[in-house]
Amino acid sequence: MSVDAKTVKALRDKTGAGMMDCKKALGETGGDMEKAIVYLREKGIASASKKSGRATREGRIISYIHPGNKLGVLLEISCETDFVAKGEQFIEFTQDIAMHIAAAAPSYLTQEEIPAEVLEQERSIYRTQALNDGKPEKIVDKIVEGRINKYAAEVCLLDQPFVKDDKIKISDFVKNGIATFGENISIARFARFKLGE
Amino acid sequence: MSVDAKTVKALRDKTGAGMMDCKKALGETGGDMEKAIVYLREKGIASASKKSGRATREGRIISYIHPGNKLGVLLEISCETDFVAKGEQFIEFTQDIAMHIAAAAPSYLTQEEIPAEVLEQERSIYRTQALNDGKPEKIVDKIVEGRINKYAAEVCLLDQPFVKDDKIKISDFVKNGIATFGENISIARFARFKLGE
Repeated sequence: MSVDAKTVKALRDKTGAGMMDCKKALGETGGDMEKAIVYLREKGIASASKKSGRATREGRIISYIHPGNKLGVLLEISCETDFVAKGEQFIEFTQDIAMHIAAAAPSYLTQEEIPAEVLEQERSIYRTQALNDGKPEKIVDKIVEGRINKYAAEVCLLDQPFVKDDKIKISDFVKNGIATFGENISIARFARFKLGE
Repeated sequence: MSVDAKTVKALRDKTGAGMMDCKKALGETGGDMEKAIVYLREKGIASASKKSGRATREGRIISYIHPGNKLGVLLEISCETDFVAKGEQFIEFTQDIAMHIAAAAPSYLTQEEIPAEVLEQERSIYRTQALNDGKPEKIVDKIVEGRINKYAAEVCLLDQPFVKDDKIKISDFVKNGIATFGENISIARFARFKLGE
């Protein structure tokens, strides 16, 4: 099969293997990137350590350590240019988000990240609570969905009210950032460690 | 059933609920801590936000951000007393480990954390490599196990050679720390973010 140059380039970036090897690997594996990586490694051409790939986006990795060193946050914010990433106002913007995470303790970035079994358990608890409170069966579903939304707003970073201005959500704060900096900006990922948790 | 005081105390710490409520919850759920938490929440006595529990260990959360803000590490090191956690020498010790993680890019803390399917794929690749190299079938298993150990030393923090002194492994560096500080010390967890990875 013929393999397009863009895919070959992507495989080269991921594995560090030569162009001809990458072309052959993609040809042998029907153009499947993951299989092509395995193929190159089996041939001894690519090594495991290059698997993670080269970074392509711009942005900023920052941390916030709360005084006393019992609580810390690591955060990746993506933007489009290094120029924006290095600007003083952008640095402040990312620090505000890091401090928010330290204070508001989100468990997930988005609602989509909440595992199905966690949602299931929350639903079941809210249902039992509502029935225990004597709510009529026919409105229980509505109550449960309302509480699930409230739960999501508590545990998902993008849905949380911003600690420095609780009239807006973090998703709005990011949208404001996009307008201010004139680039697409997104929260890529975060980690929050509290001692012994 | 009768419930021991220690379990009741643990449930109180986790939920913030009163002693009698905790006793009742454990009685109703056969002493199962997780079920007792769900029971208390269904009764509206405990809230979701207290679920994560109180921190009990001492230690230190620290970060290392590589100049340029394209790479960062968040790290939790446990020890037994706050006195040790705040000592200058311990702070240096934790910073050495954070910088090691930034440089050596481990994927896991211990070999036990490597997912079974990852090990499976590595084994299969090494087997094919060895057979491609014309190694006789009867020694292939030994070669594969040797390479798996080498792989673990590359991707597991505790098995990696320490970047500041590659004659010892990180697990040895931690053991040295235990001797130096006279307390049990362990690496609890870490996160390493590289921009766009």
